[in-house]
Amino acid sequence: MINFGLIGAGRIGQVHARSLAAHPNARLVAIADPVIEAAEKLAKSYDARAVADAEELFQADDIDAVIIGSPTPLHVAHITAAVKAGKAALCEKPIAMSSADEEKLMKAIEGYDAKVMLGFNRRFDPAFAAVRKAVSDGKIGGEIEQLTIISRDPAAPPKEYIAVSGGIFKDMTIHDFDTAQFMLGPIKTVQAVGQNLDPELADTGDFDAAVITLIAESGAVATITNSRHCSSGYDQRLEAFGKDGALFAENIRPTTVRFSNNQVTDAQDVYLDFFLDRYADAYALELGHFIDALEAGEEISPSIADGFAALRIAEAAEESAHDGSKPIHL
Amino acid sequence: MINFGLIGAGRIGQVHARSLAAHPNARLVAIADPVIEAAEKLAKSYDARAVADAEELFQADDIDAVIIGSPTPLHVAHITAAVKAGKAALCEKPIAMSSADEEKLMKAIEGYDAKVMLGFNRRFDPAFAAVRKAVSDGKIGGEIEQLTIISRDPAAPPKEYIAVSGGIFKDMTIHDFDTAQFMLGPIKTVQAVGQNLDPELADTGDFDAAVITLIAESGAVATITNSRHCSSGYDQRLEAFGKDGALFAENIRPTTVRFSNNQVTDAQDVYLDFFLDRYADAYALELGHFIDALEAGEEISPSIADGFAALRIAEAAEESAHDGSKPIHL
Amino acid sequence: MINFGLIGAGRIGQVHARSLAAHPNARLVAIADPVIEAAEKLAKSYDARAVADAEELFQADDIDAVIIGSPTPLHVAHITAAVKAGKAALCEKPIAMSSADEEKLMKAIEGYDAKVMLGFNRRFDPAFAAVRKAVSDGKIGGEIEQLTIISRDPAAPPKEYIAVSGGIFKDMTIHDFDTAQFMLGPIKTVQAVGQNLDPELADTGDFDAAVITLIAESGAVATITNSRHCSSGYDQRLEAFGKDGALFAENIRPTTVRFSNNQVTDAQDVYLDFFLDRYADAYALELGHFIDALEAGEEISPSIADGFAALRIAEAAEESAHDGSKPIHL
Amino acid sequence: MINFGLIGAGRIGQVHARSLAAHPNARLVAIADPVIEAAEKLAKSYDARAVADAEELFQADDIDAVIIGSPTPLHVAHITAAVKAGKAALCEKPIAMSSADEEKLMKAIEGYDAKVMLGFNRRFDPAFAAVRKAVSDGKIGGEIEQLTIISRDPAAPPKEYIAVSGGIFKDMTIHDFDTAQFMLGPIKTVQAVGQNLDPELADTGDFDAAVITLIAESGAVATITNSRHCSSGYDQRLEAFGKDGALFAENIRPTTVRFSNNQVTDAQDVYLDFFLDRYADAYALELGHFIDALEAGEEISPSIADGFAALRIAEAAEESAHDGSKPIHL
Repeated sequence: MINFGLIGAGRIGQVHARSLAAHPNARLVAIADPVIEAAEKLAKSYDARAVADAEELFQADDIDAVIIGSPTPLHVAHITAAVKAGKAALCEKPIAMSSADEEKLMKAIEGYDAKVMLGFNRRFDPAFAAVRKAVSDGKIGGEIEQLTIISRDPAAPPKEYIAVSGGIFKDMTIHDFDTAQFMLGPIKTVQAVGQNLDPELADTGDFDAAVITLIAESGAVATITNSRHCSSGYDQRLEAFGKDGALFAENIRPTTVRFSNNQVTDAQDVYLDFFLDRYADAYALELGHFIDALEAGEEISPSIADGFAALRIAEAAEESAHDGSKPIHL
Repeated sequence: MINFGLIGAGRIGQVHARSLAAHPNARLVAIADPVIEAAEKLAKSYDARAVADAEELFQADDIDAVIIGSPTPLHVAHITAAVKAGKAALCEKPIAMSSADEEKLMKAIEGYDAKVMLGFNRRFDPAFAAVRKAVSDGKIGGEIEQLTIISRDPAAPPKEYIAVSGGIFKDMTIHDFDTAQFMLGPIKTVQAVGQNLDPELADTGDFDAAVITLIAESGAVATITNSRHCSSGYDQRLEAFGKDGALFAENIRPTTVRFSNNQVTDAQDVYLDFFLDRYADAYALELGHFIDALEAGEEISPSIADGFAALRIAEAAEESAHDGSKPIHL
Repeated sequence: MINFGLIGAGRIGQVHARSLAAHPNARLVAIADPVIEAAEKLAKSYDARAVADAEELFQADDIDAVIIGSPTPLHVAHITAAVKAGKAALCEKPIAMSSADEEKLMKAIEGYDAKVMLGFNRRFDPAFAAVRKAVSDGKIGGEIEQLTIISRDPAAPPKEYIAVSGGIFKDMTIHDFDTAQFMLGPIKTVQAVGQNLDPELADTGDFDAAVITLIAESGAVATITNSRHCSSGYDQRLEAFGKDGALFAENIRPTTVRFSNNQVTDAQDVYLDFFLDRYADAYALELGHFIDALEAGEEISPSIADGFAALRIAEAAEESAHDGSKPIHL
Repeated sequence: MINFGLIGAGRIGQVHARSLAAHPNARLVAIADPVIEAAEKLAKSYDARAVADAEELFQADDIDAVIIGSPTPLHVAHITAAVKAGKAALCEKPIAMSSADEEKLMKAIEGYDAKVMLGFNRRFDPAFAAVRKAVSDGKIGGEIEQLTIISRDPAAPPKEYIAVSGGIFKDMTIHDFDTAQFMLGPIKTVQAVGQNLDPELADTGDFDAAVITLIAESGAVATITNSRHCSSGYDQRLEAFGKDGALFAENIRPTTVRFSNNQVTDAQDVYLDFFLDRYADAYALELGHFIDALEAGEEISPSIADGFAALRIAEAAEESAHDGSKPIHL
């Protein structure tokens, strides 16, 4: 049984709280959020205690591991505190606002037995994981040669969110960059084209769509197509093409119902609306993996290094998109 | 090279004329239709001669084979005349208005070398034929155990047509009965439920929908679901289920385009509207099979016997539907 | 909060125990099973008490409702005891071995405020429920005209199970009969063809496949195609056809992954293996509906009457299948 | 009626000969090929005359239009000769080996009434054309924002072909470049990554796969993913994404049959093998469009300018792929 502290009582915090409650080997002990009302409300539902300061979780004797769902600028500090306090940590993406923090973090936790996992939930999505496994099992005749990732949000977040998000590449594409790493191994070259499609978002200073090309050390090439809007819902697909076959992970709908009339045939429902639904299983499986790894004393993955590798790709994409989409070598 | 006479310049006659023109080993020599203007118009397009009386085709020295697209009550007489004149014949379904005509026909052509093929085009549909072949090749682990046929027309024909059609079972389901024979072999028991769904057709004295259950001598069971209307177009599908697998022949759309918006996703086009489009390939392949069999001097199939076997199933279905859907044993 | 007693610690009992644990307004208090070890094992996981005799649940003051997962021959007695003890009851299908028990049951509980729900989980399956709702919302232009149900188990149960199952119609098709009622309203005529496809099961005295035609009072016709085996898994589909459209509920796979190589393209995974997986959501939603209805003091559905109506259809199907598939009028 | 001369009796020549024979308003008069046996063989099938020298076609009084299926290095000369001789011309892609030929060609035909169409058959593919039309009709809420083209050949051509092909971008991707123009309008920036996946082709000096990003003047971004091999056949798809919807053109299979067993479900056939099958309809529709435009005296499209525009994109892609995939501005 692993006793958990949860940092952050927002949307993601609620998802993790529910997953913890459902997991037979986990117990949610305490929830920290500076908005103490939010922490208290969530704590009440799950019979946990609420605190305003995450520091209390790091100091608590009855907590083995923390889930870090605090704002990104706090991630490095929270990871550091957890590691120094001997707590395992599952940290949401991105790991930091800048890859420059890597050295700082590694230095701060040097000598400690760090058990830190990055919350790249797509690695645990049943479809994406099945694609990766099928590739490893040789189903397409070797490694992936070409990878096509389509990743579009149903609608843009509020401008206030965009302003502090770190930009589309660190905020949104970061997941796809990790997916590319997960599927292809290390990435060596990054190119990006940013688009500004929605006039409403023109003054945010951020792109609202982007197309990125990644070249992996393996020679494989990935394209990532992002948009902050998609009329049909949360569009999350990928295709892995290889010498002897191809694998496709398709979108998920609420049911399998199809509809035909005199305009359309075999029409399906729109996609699940957003990540809390689309990746509900992935979040639970991610947590299960973390718990299993802790209990078995095994290496934890995705790691801090994976988190910073994805962040460096995001930074390269940003540079490319702002510099005439020139190729950036990592 | 086989020289053809065509009886009937209507919709089906036009399909056959086009197929003949496109076939390298066929030549359309003459077209007979009592509506001589129709015969002349079609003849002009294909550089053939037009006659009013089919008898002229049977007597013509430059004709090797006839395609019989005359009204059903004339089929037996036209087959008889063709056989006696030494012409091969491809006759549209149904072979007759009553199975009682079988004895009459067989007696009339006794001693002649009859080369007669029934126009059950579905046997030549690429999808249906592929299903049959896959079953024979052992893809589902032996013969079909359960067969599901869905067969719906886009819209009802004019009441005048229904009045002389012989009823839904002989006019429409006859194709599905032959498909069942083609897939399962001889049928031994027939049950049918007739439906009257469209108030507009209430006074035709005919059903406008029906559900039929067939038991084959093999022990397989088939269901056929018919309707005179289908909002999405011409609905023509089947499923063949066996011990080790299943095969599905799906509907055909004009293109492979799919469409998604905020209401539907991966919506496809409505089905091809009706038999001239849906079975365009099947008509051409049927004719090709007839020509090949004639040139090779091989057995011709589907045969007169197949035509009457399907007709007997239709008559049994009609009796069942009118008599409380009791089972009729053939 | 509703306090539950659970009768039966087998497969279905375990499903319900899990659903109860996950439901915010339910508490599992006690589990009864004559195999006391099974009851104890399950009770331990969910912090409940175990008893051998269901009678203890009916007498317990801390129990508001029972879930009846006992063998079918005990259902009527358990429902009666629950109602007399003032407990609500959710009873698994079929409600009894014979429709003759209806009068007995109704008499026994006459005058009591019976709160009994039948466990026809398919009504709560998200896809089937969405089809029913879409029909009610007018999506296909009125009521269903033709309903096609395909329902095949992945593999036959042990012969010992078949021997006491009451036969394929009461054991397996009973769900489809209720689905037909749910979709079409009352059924008035039943015809059935039984098949014996698997030589291994030849000596069970039961059919291992069947095709049933139902005529509803509305004039709609349903076909049900059943088999005790299906190589691709648990095959659970339906099509609802109406004047202006059609709705299809498709099978469910573990993921959305598709695979292509030089033999197949867009190949999907085999279906979820069996009812515990396929209808996992349906079981939870069914329980949620029961709890909601109890808390709101509303009419409970599906009712005892629905349970016996489905049973009468099953008995009619059995009679028809054993008597030359003659039509039976209810 | 338009009388045609056909230059080239190879694979493409044969396709055009068949389309001409089937078209009601076209007549194939003569076929030119330096391999006179090939010309004679084809001419015999279609009742035309055979010549070795294309010049004879340009001089022939009984020829209104020519189809230029000669090797690419001869295209400009053949177009020039046709235009000067007052013949209309339908020329296969690419229009030339180098965009430098544009000025030369335009000068040579200056003052003549040039009726020249480029053979970009994908514009006439029913699915691609339907996507373009649906976009124009406003189905996705305005113009395309992101375009994803997947275009893979079933297997690499012989090395001898590759050696004279002009490279993957001019030989293969040229079609996709034109598709991008057709869908998005003028392209302003090109980036390309070349891949060498097949060791067998390592010494050809050409890439055997490529991923290209195009930025259109409209702001739309297209990705093109090419490969010289695809185990499932000729992989030809595209997705057009816009503000209010998306359109997908899927691959084509020989039939609609799907297959399920204990390994796969709803598995479809592999794709049509190659362009002669996949684009059979497109070739016929392309020719029909050419004939219609000639008879109506209308502007002919795609034009010489479209041919050179696509060629300039190909040259930019080649430069980019050979220069670290830097962006090239047109």
